[in-house]
Amino acid sequence: MIPDASKSGADRPWVGSSVRRREDDRMLGGRGRFLADLAAGAAHVVFIRSSQAHATITGIDTTVAERMPGVHGVFGAADLGLDGAWIPALTTPDPDFSAATSLELAEQRLPVLAVDRVHYVGQPIAVVVAGDRYVAEDAAESVVVSYETLPVLTDAATALEPGSPALFGHLPDNQAARLEYEFGSPDEAFETAAHVVEGTYRMERHGAVPLECRGVLADYDAGRGRVEVHTSTQVPHMVRNAICAVTDWDRQDVVVSVPDVGGGFGTKANVYGEEIVLAVLARHTEERVVWVEDRQEHLLASAQARDQLHRARLAVDAEGAILAWDVDFVVDIGAGSLWVAGIVANTAVHLMGPYRIPAMHVRGCAAMTNKTLVAQYRGAGRPEATFALERSLDAAAAVVGISGEEIRRRNLLGAGDLPYARPIPYRDGVPICFDGGDYLACLDSAVRTLPRSEVDVCAIENPDHHVGYGLSSYLEATGRGPHETARVRVLPSGQFEVTAGAASAGQGHETVFAQVAADALDVPLEQVRYRPCDTEQLPEGVGTFASRSAVLAGSAVHQACGELIALASQRAAQLLDAESVGYAGGRFAAAGTAVGWDELAAAGRVGGAGEGGAALDVSSVYRVPTVTWTMGVHAVILGVHRRTGIVKVLRYAVSHEGGREINPRIVEGQIVGGVAQGIGGALFEAWRYSPTGEPTSTTFAAYHLPLTTDVPPVLVNHHHVATPANPLGVRGAGESGTIAVYAAVAAAVDDALGGGHHVTTTPIGTADLCRALDKVAS
Amino acid sequence: MIPDASKSGADRPWVGSSVRRREDDRMLGGRGRFLADLAAGAAHVVFIRSSQAHATITGIDTTVAERMPGVHGVFGAADLGLDGAWIPALTTPDPDFSAATSLELAEQRLPVLAVDRVHYVGQPIAVVVAGDRYVAEDAAESVVVSYETLPVLTDAATALEPGSPALFGHLPDNQAARLEYEFGSPDEAFETAAHVVEGTYRMERHGAVPLECRGVLADYDAGRGRVEVHTSTQVPHMVRNAICAVTDWDRQDVVVSVPDVGGGFGTKANVYGEEIVLAVLARHTEERVVWVEDRQEHLLASAQARDQLHRARLAVDAEGAILAWDVDFVVDIGAGSLWVAGIVANTAVHLMGPYRIPAMHVRGCAAMTNKTLVAQYRGAGRPEATFALERSLDAAAAVVGISGEEIRRRNLLGAGDLPYARPIPYRDGVPICFDGGDYLACLDSAVRTLPRSEVDVCAIENPDHHVGYGLSSYLEATGRGPHETARVRVLPSGQFEVTAGAASAGQGHETVFAQVAADALDVPLEQVRYRPCDTEQLPEGVGTFASRSAVLAGSAVHQACGELIALASQRAAQLLDAESVGYAGGRFAAAGTAVGWDELAAAGRVGGAGEGGAALDVSSVYRVPTVTWTMGVHAVILGVHRRTGIVKVLRYAVSHEGGREINPRIVEGQIVGGVAQGIGGALFEAWRYSPTGEPTSTTFAAYHLPLTTDVPPVLVNHHHVATPANPLGVRGAGESGTIAVYAAVAAAVDDALGGGHHVTTTPIGTADLCRALDKVAS
Repeated sequence: MIPDASKSGADRPWVGSSVRRREDDRMLGGRGRFLADLAAGAAHVVFIRSSQAHATITGIDTTVAERMPGVHGVFGAADLGLDGAWIPALTTPDPDFSAATSLELAEQRLPVLAVDRVHYVGQPIAVVVAGDRYVAEDAAESVVVSYETLPVLTDAATALEPGSPALFGHLPDNQAARLEYEFGSPDEAFETAAHVVEGTYRMERHGAVPLECRGVLADYDAGRGRVEVHTSTQVPHMVRNAICAVTDWDRQDVVVSVPDVGGGFGTKANVYGEEIVLAVLARHTEERVVWVEDRQEHLLASAQARDQLHRARLAVDAEGAILAWDVDFVVDIGAGSLWVAGIVANTAVHLMGPYRIPAMHVRGCAAMTNKTLVAQYRGAGRPEATFALERSLDAAAAVVGISGEEIRRRNLLGAGDLPYARPIPYRDGVPICFDGGDYLACLDSAVRTLPRSEVDVCAIENPDHHVGYGLSSYLEATGRGPHETARVRVLPSGQFEVTAGAASAGQGHETVFAQVAADALDVPLEQVRYRPCDTEQLPEGVGTFASRSAVLAGSAVHQACGELIALASQRAAQLLDAESVGYAGGRFAAAGTAVGWDELAAAGRVGGAGEGGAALDVSSVYRVPTVTWTMGVHAVILGVHRRTGIVKVLRYAVSHEGGREINPRIVEGQIVGGVAQGIGGALFEAWRYSPTGEPTSTTFAAYHLPLTTDVPPVLVNHHHVATPANPLGVRGAGESGTIAVYAAVAAAVDDALGGGHHVTTTPIGTADLCRALDKVAS
Repeated sequence: MIPDASKSGADRPWVGSSVRRREDDRMLGGRGRFLADLAAGAAHVVFIRSSQAHATITGIDTTVAERMPGVHGVFGAADLGLDGAWIPALTTPDPDFSAATSLELAEQRLPVLAVDRVHYVGQPIAVVVAGDRYVAEDAAESVVVSYETLPVLTDAATALEPGSPALFGHLPDNQAARLEYEFGSPDEAFETAAHVVEGTYRMERHGAVPLECRGVLADYDAGRGRVEVHTSTQVPHMVRNAICAVTDWDRQDVVVSVPDVGGGFGTKANVYGEEIVLAVLARHTEERVVWVEDRQEHLLASAQARDQLHRARLAVDAEGAILAWDVDFVVDIGAGSLWVAGIVANTAVHLMGPYRIPAMHVRGCAAMTNKTLVAQYRGAGRPEATFALERSLDAAAAVVGISGEEIRRRNLLGAGDLPYARPIPYRDGVPICFDGGDYLACLDSAVRTLPRSEVDVCAIENPDHHVGYGLSSYLEATGRGPHETARVRVLPSGQFEVTAGAASAGQGHETVFAQVAADALDVPLEQVRYRPCDTEQLPEGVGTFASRSAVLAGSAVHQACGELIALASQRAAQLLDAESVGYAGGRFAAAGTAVGWDELAAAGRVGGAGEGGAALDVSSVYRVPTVTWTMGVHAVILGVHRRTGIVKVLRYAVSHEGGREINPRIVEGQIVGGVAQGIGGALFEAWRYSPTGEPTSTTFAAYHLPLTTDVPPVLVNHHHVATPANPLGVRGAGESGTIAVYAAVAAAVDDALGGGHHVTTTPIGTADLCRALDKVAS
């Protein structure tokens, strides 16, 4: 474990030090201000949502609701000028990537509010506004929506079959995206290989389920003629841009601010109809309006994820070296996804894994069904790709007759292989080159930390369990560009305020951006304050997702601080009447004289020597040409209960190539939290639908999150292979904890059950395991 | 009357045009956001106030209150670290003025919360915080404060008598300020003058009484570690500075914002203990807390004004020309005033009037009594000085045997006299020079607009009334410096946002600053938005008082726009690859090519040609060396009811030398509103106290505001004598409507009653008039 920092105020560098998270004092003290904490004085909005998975709306009767005392109004798309309004897509790959992968994308038509047709249960149709939440809920229940049902598709394979009914008129084949790429000579390799293993790997639909649900508050400032939106988002600028795109408002007509956010994990890195509706509603009614999602709504209608099926073939030689790798995958994006291009591309790229793979053929597509929307969720295609590849490696190892460790050792890229170029470009169009240090070293440290021999200890400790050992590597492209923004300004006292375009959803931005700034400014950490993100003070930004905040926003903070020093140096030179000044330790010096930031700030005041000068306030745009790459290896020991089939994870170790870590304790927290979510996905979590598209997992009684008792202590090895891709040398770490868990747990279950058991689907159901135990017993 | 503007979007200049007030749509539509509108979600604060005018506090029993359900706490000065904290004074005259007037000032010790002694009924002692206002009120009533009473002083003359008990230990003579100045040879003139008239003129205590009472909301932002204060103030920066001075917080630890404010008139151009207490309370409790003053509190404990007594002697020659003027005045500032220096200085300076006065001797002082605090109120010493001087002129006219019009005509400065230097400096230390155009012309136009002959018409229309005619001139120093700030920035669309350090309390800043900016930027008015003042976005500012906003803040906006054009021109030159560019009509042009603001804004975006450049955002400090001067003449016809003595104002005309007027309709509104308040002060309004210091005017049943039926239409002549003192040529107008009303109404009452009646006190009581009517009848 990382020891607590005992640095004094002036100790530097801060980057690399596990200083305590500054936000925790507030958060753990119950003094966080989340969206719902801002609701006072607002009228409450409740959404009327579709009860049908696929239907034509034939009528909406709001008369009872409109007459209920306390109801301010009932509004549908037409009432708000949102008839036919779609939310614009959030990601478009570079043309070079599209060309290399034959990527074809259909337009997504996600209505802000459904007008005449609904495509999933939970789709927003209209809103009730009332002074009181209870009244609004009652009124919403009194609204009668009449439907004519249409045929329902809940299975991607069926949706893609010729002759299936088309869910959207412009998409006759229900196919939202398709890509294909190939390199090397896979067909030849498959023909001549010593061994070919085949499998179909399914990861069921599950997702983020953060502690805090979503919520939006919107207020109309009649004085400034603008709407102020507070939303629990990871991407305030995308929300702002979408609102402007849908409404045709100018950017100054709306400001999006982010309060404290209780977890995002990707489901809040999306733009939702609710965000647009609340903004429009505030301007339309000139009321302060709030919508706070309840848990059932969240499990019903917030964006979901995964839901992929991979048909995979792996060719290896007699020693288990990979010769070729062929995958055909389908992503079920439900009724739509603003991130469809990203999810398909991410899956396709990460199928390459951290291995020497000389030949590949990948085909992928995204299918539309009558299920809830899909967005990113921690890993966003990487866990699915990793699951297919790692499961195939385990299958190959069994055929070759070597261990899971050995087949990875034989194929992993080592220090001599890296950096390692691949023949296709990344989504940003830049040729892929894994810039890691030594992937084999991660395997070594993982098995050193959690050796297979520990299985024996665990077996003695857990006599009721079949105990098994599993390994999985993962590869991750992190720090996606093209840019991020940061602003640093000098406060009246000479202290600093820093902010960045990547909004915090609990990741510790308050702490790590202050660490980066304190180092860059060469001042004590206490001198730097963090300001949460809003689109007024920082009009441009991208957001927090894709393990990009530390890489992009951290580097933007670093760059902005440098620019601030340069600006302040000019000011100091004027003040000291010097040609130029040197800067160190918060002081600008020239020929025996010096000034500090406090004096510069004071000089800029009215009546000061620098009165009327521009503010010491710098906004900076940091750009990267492409991603950086990280990888890691997970090792797990678990027990399958001999009678119930219930899986108990006993030991867990992660070796992670994190690059330079700004705050190792926070990185470790990210990894441990990621493992916990991975265990949930591997063993428990699934959103399921009836054949008529009725969601059956809309409470925590049906959607099973892992409990603290399901997650053992996680041992983390940090491999600090700095990347030259950014000035801080950091690699992203937000998603890495999750990616490999599914495959590692599956391998350990197989190992526990023995007898050639081969997990192909997550969550690994207890019922399936019971059946397998019957076989073991028999 | 000023016709409604029918200008199209591109018509210029905007300055000088009576465009509709932009705020009215919001205000009249009920969509203003006043302090109380922000209260949702806040805990309610109720102040425990002194019931005694002068006493030692022997105990405070809060036990019942603290146990009441819903009470969060009861806090006194010691609980909040405010033991012994005083509010710092808000104005200090220049040493040259002090030397020229022998000004002596005692330190004002206004405790934020009373600790062991109270000095007036209503003084804040402690606060109750509760979730609900009703609970807080009940709890506050349950708090028992024990007192030992001390001798009470409610009369300034008594307070100044040797042997009177001292109210404050450091002020043995109860004298808070004293000044004296003399020029010419007044003693000699009085000895040789043809006529000397003497009088004692009293203006009773009254004040602003705005439509909206005061209120403060304070919130602690744990994330940014700062207190956010919203207060219905005219001087947010002074409030911020006072909070920092009392608490020792840095400026970034507190931000003061101004919501819509429903009238200030000076009582909100003050810093109050409540503002400091709420800020400290928010940080102490980490709660959002609000205090909304009720009307009784306002009439009891918000700052009051006037309360002056002038002993005056005027020497004239046989033709009525002024030879010498001698005044000894006393201001009763009650238990203290942060503005004591300003009020005393203002009174002393404005005693000079717009006349040729060759010799003067002025003595003034401020006395402490056990009455409510005093601040500025529209005119702030000018109405009192004008009343003494104009009443003395009327007395002299009677003695000389000429009309009120004639004596003014013989003494007013004319076009040939101006500019007119006076031998003492203004409060800012700069020698006084009246920079007006032609004061006589104002008299001419006033009597042309409302000639004495109109009395006969009125007498026929009002047979139950004795009808009389009165005139009064006034002089006003406006636009006090030393500086004001403004900020202009380019919005994402290429539109503009403007703000200024002078906060709006309803004066139309939203409209007039946009007019100034639109002209300075040479763009349509619609392109400019106004942003209300807060101390974060504009860290420096002075405030709205002393008829200074249009002059100072207007000029700051003008200057900032010029600087913005200069900055943008550099940017445009880079973009057009030109040496330099010309600017007109919103376009920057060079050699056959041009860009507009929208293109510059777009170029500055991420990915634009100007990415990473500094924001098009300019803050500017506008300085003036000294004030500018305005004057005017009021003419009034009124009737005194023959039986009841009730005064009915029948006709009113004002000629006002307003300089260049940004928005004549707004100036006219200021003048008409000022006349209404003047009529209130002349006829109705008085805060009175029992001999034990108990206020007897704490409801509108006892404190009489003028009704709409008391105020006739006011005819306004605008004299547009531009001043060279600022780039806009404007003279302030905020206070001018009020200053002359008292004297004009008094003269008309005298004229109505005839028989040598001479009003010496305002409000002119109906009881006094009834007695006078008895004499007329007898």
